[in-house]
Amino acid sequence: MHVADRLKQRIERTGSRVCVGFDINPQHLPETLLKSEDINNYKAITRAVDKFGKSVINAVADDAAAVKFQSAWYESLGVRGYWILRGHIRLARKRGLFVISDAKRGDIGVTAEAYASAYLIPWDPTLQVDMLTVSPYLGTDTLMPFVEACSSYERGVFVLVKTSNPGSGDFQDQLLKDGRTLYQTVADSVTEIGSEPGLIGKCGYSAVGAVVGATYPEVVAELRERMPRALLLLPGVGAQGADPAKLRSAFGEDGFGALVTSSRGIIFAYKDGGGDFAEAARAAAVELNDTVNSII
Amino acid sequence: MHVADRLKQRIERTGSRVCVGFDINPQHLPETLLKSEDINNYKAITRAVDKFGKSVINAVADDAAAVKFQSAWYESLGVRGYWILRGHIRLARKRGLFVISDAKRGDIGVTAEAYASAYLIPWDPTLQVDMLTVSPYLGTDTLMPFVEACSSYERGVFVLVKTSNPGSGDFQDQLLKDGRTLYQTVADSVTEIGSEPGLIGKCGYSAVGAVVGATYPEVVAELRERMPRALLLLPGVGAQGADPAKLRSAFGEDGFGALVTSSRGIIFAYKDGGGDFAEAARAAAVELNDTVNSII
Repeated sequence: MHVADRLKQRIERTGSRVCVGFDINPQHLPETLLKSEDINNYKAITRAVDKFGKSVINAVADDAAAVKFQSAWYESLGVRGYWILRGHIRLARKRGLFVISDAKRGDIGVTAEAYASAYLIPWDPTLQVDMLTVSPYLGTDTLMPFVEACSSYERGVFVLVKTSNPGSGDFQDQLLKDGRTLYQTVADSVTEIGSEPGLIGKCGYSAVGAVVGATYPEVVAELRERMPRALLLLPGVGAQGADPAKLRSAFGEDGFGALVTSSRGIIFAYKDGGGDFAEAARAAAVELNDTVNSII
Repeated sequence: MHVADRLKQRIERTGSRVCVGFDINPQHLPETLLKSEDINNYKAITRAVDKFGKSVINAVADDAAAVKFQSAWYESLGVRGYWILRGHIRLARKRGLFVISDAKRGDIGVTAEAYASAYLIPWDPTLQVDMLTVSPYLGTDTLMPFVEACSSYERGVFVLVKTSNPGSGDFQDQLLKDGRTLYQTVADSVTEIGSEPGLIGKCGYSAVGAVVGATYPEVVAELRERMPRALLLLPGVGAQGADPAKLRSAFGEDGFGALVTSSRGIIFAYKDGGGDFAEAARAAAVELNDTVNSII
């Protein structure tokens, strides 16, 4: 099934438009899993990260549409981190979650093919997921190997268009001589690349999506119009302070086409309210989802 | 010792300004290591990639200044690929080579810290290297965690400024309203970020370097002037067809400050001339280096 149709089905099944981000910073792990004195103990950290991730995946599996694994935190644990990531991806798939790797990969020609092979092409040893975040700086030719893999294997990509961080304007907001900003230029490329009929699912959305920071709600509205068929991944809610109630414009009239993603605000929710960390994460995912669904 | 001073010392010791790129595409491995019928045999591929990499590292260890590991090809082998990468990095360090990870990482704030921790901060489980390639699309704030790690741990980064691929102009060459191109804007940020006194080595070069495609020699000259203290990593020679004789302008008057990097043209040189693959790689590295040194 086309990746966008799979996502739509998953949203219908769960009633959730929320993606839970797994940015497992060991410093925020609960004391019950990692004692303060073990914060530099490699074995203790990896054990705790593994267990924490699995517990939270299981806790949110029926209440979230998707999970997004932030590759950086796993990579910071070296090779063992990749084993843990593989286990988390497998568990999430097994639980029926739509799985996104937030690895922001991008490279030239044949190297992009290798990255596509690592994340989007299903063969056993890889860390395969439903969708991968990719960086556009190297040019549209470097996105094509990813798009071809999407087409062949029913996978998808989220191209970084406008990111959620405070400094995202440094380059992305630069005004070009033709009157567009850089992010608008990238958005137009996303629309062009993703409009090929073979890339559009039955639901009308494309396998070529975009990352658009929820921290800039006016830009979200503008980019939804500019990329009418793109699935939008919207980070910035939660720890980064974006207001989920301002995101109606990200969704199509059909109420689909976007995922609101929160990481620290969900997985480390126990830090605010106390109690069991997994149950706190589940409750935070449900609460965010209620807010999102209330505006649809 | 400051990373730029380490690189200069290595160049003086070896007489080499060449970086050998390890883009180990299994399809190009010699028949002696991977039989044609094993091209889809995962165990056979990983064994062959591991052995091939180690043989070539040992072959070029006295004749190349640096090695650059293309993360994508290792990642395409899944978790086992990371074990192999770790082994290759360790061997290269042991042999005295200057080690670069070509992973093109980049992410927001605290996530960039996690990537810096994975590649630039020396702690045992990580894939630590001397310098890491990083992507600027997300903004200069996202480069700062890398720069701070460079400052604290005597490491360096190469920021993608102008890449070697045919489509690098799609976004990088866009002319901004202020008259600069996007790549010039990024170059100016590299200069600004890298000019802090604590980041400059005794040799005068900064820990904040740049990737500039050798396939655009006029741009190389222009960017050397625009980033006078940046170490330049110059890909595009060899398989991508750039002429190493046109790269004089990349080097400072002192003859330092740049590395010419070739991947397929060196590691798979055996495909042109036949013979032992490791010896062919060594000979190709020496030949490229002779060309580079002839213009200094």
